[in-house]
Amino acid sequence: MTNPTTFGLQRLIGYNFHHQALLTQALTHRSFGSVNNERLEFLGDGVLNFIIASQLYLAFPKLDEGDLSRLRAHLVKEPTLGELALTLNIGDALRLGEGELKSGGWRRPSVLADALEAIIGAVFLDAGFDAAEMVVIKLFTPLIDKIDPKSIGKDPKSLLQEYLQSKKIDVPSYEVLAIEGEAHCQTFRVECKVAKFNITTQGEGTSRRAAEQEAAKLAYQQIIA
Amino acid sequence: MTNPTTFGLQRLIGYNFHHQALLTQALTHRSFGSVNNERLEFLGDGVLNFIIASQLYLAFPKLDEGDLSRLRAHLVKEPTLGELALTLNIGDALRLGEGELKSGGWRRPSVLADALEAIIGAVFLDAGFDAAEMVVIKLFTPLIDKIDPKSIGKDPKSLLQEYLQSKKIDVPSYEVLAIEGEAHCQTFRVECKVAKFNITTQGEGTSRRAAEQEAAKLAYQQIIA
Repeated sequence: MTNPTTFGLQRLIGYNFHHQALLTQALTHRSFGSVNNERLEFLGDGVLNFIIASQLYLAFPKLDEGDLSRLRAHLVKEPTLGELALTLNIGDALRLGEGELKSGGWRRPSVLADALEAIIGAVFLDAGFDAAEMVVIKLFTPLIDKIDPKSIGKDPKSLLQEYLQSKKIDVPSYEVLAIEGEAHCQTFRVECKVAKFNITTQGEGTSRRAAEQEAAKLAYQQIIA
Repeated sequence: MTNPTTFGLQRLIGYNFHHQALLTQALTHRSFGSVNNERLEFLGDGVLNFIIASQLYLAFPKLDEGDLSRLRAHLVKEPTLGELALTLNIGDALRLGEGELKSGGWRRPSVLADALEAIIGAVFLDAGFDAAEMVVIKLFTPLIDKIDPKSIGKDPKSLLQEYLQSKKIDVPSYEVLAIEGEAHCQTFRVECKVAKFNITTQGEGTSRRAAEQEAAKLAYQQIIA
């Protein structure tokens, strides 16, 4: 008997389970019963992390291991997985206990992300590494293609500083040029100087930090342009 | 031409590289040059973590995901990998910069552990997942077989408490029965009571904490016996 909810899910992930019971388990939250998706999530987290690592390794041959780790963390973090799970309508197929159901567990990012990992773990158990890899590639390639490896997960000041340090160039200097407006709505204007490149930029913001980030962003854009 | 050092290493890990350059890179510390093992280590860390996860998943069908994570952390931690690397004589095959060589980098656990992970990553690149899995299984099965999943990485008091909490049973009570001896060499005698099971044990030690741990161990052993 085909379950219409999981039929659509299997179409979307591009994989049909030999053992439908594995998929059912992957969709079972611990609030539903003792046979649930927690162990599958452990397995799925591992295989997902590794497949993403290997895809990034191949896609970005010039990135060092620190940047690769950063990109991987971005792709496998709960909000990313939760959004992906939404596009697969995993919430509709979840089996939740009554309390979780009433409190909206089917739309909670953590619950959805866990179920998605469990599904990937279940594919691995059902058919091995290559099958899990195909599912992960299908789901994550659009996200990997959109990555700007230079900027993900980092603020402009850190990006600029790390770039300069990697070239053994002195870190930029920041100077507050002006603070305008009344105490409750001040605007800061900050100058960022990268002496080595003869670059000077200005940023504005409602805090000194925000103004520095803006100035750093402009300087970084000029340098890598 | 066969390199006698890496010939022995390949025999010990049970895998012969198609592309010896991958093995060479895996054995190259960053102090040696810009083509080094850091990216391979990133890849190897991922595949190792996952293969260990899947082996533990299969070996311990009754453990929950928290215990599985704890066991995995124990198996892939630096000291464990460093010791394993010593048994493979990886230190002899490492390529290190002069500074690292003089400061004994070839016997530093972190350097050895990183190289071992890089080798596993290199096997994955050289021949795919199944080859990497065979190497990991060969190297780690003796360690997995030795695991006592109940006790790794936890002290008896924590073990006892977590066990009782998982059964919704009141935590044990500890009472100091006696402190004997002079100030610099006291002996503490502590009683541990688990009211629900009508269990009372005593432990002795040179500190209150040590005596409590001993009493907790005896109580835990009685409960799970």
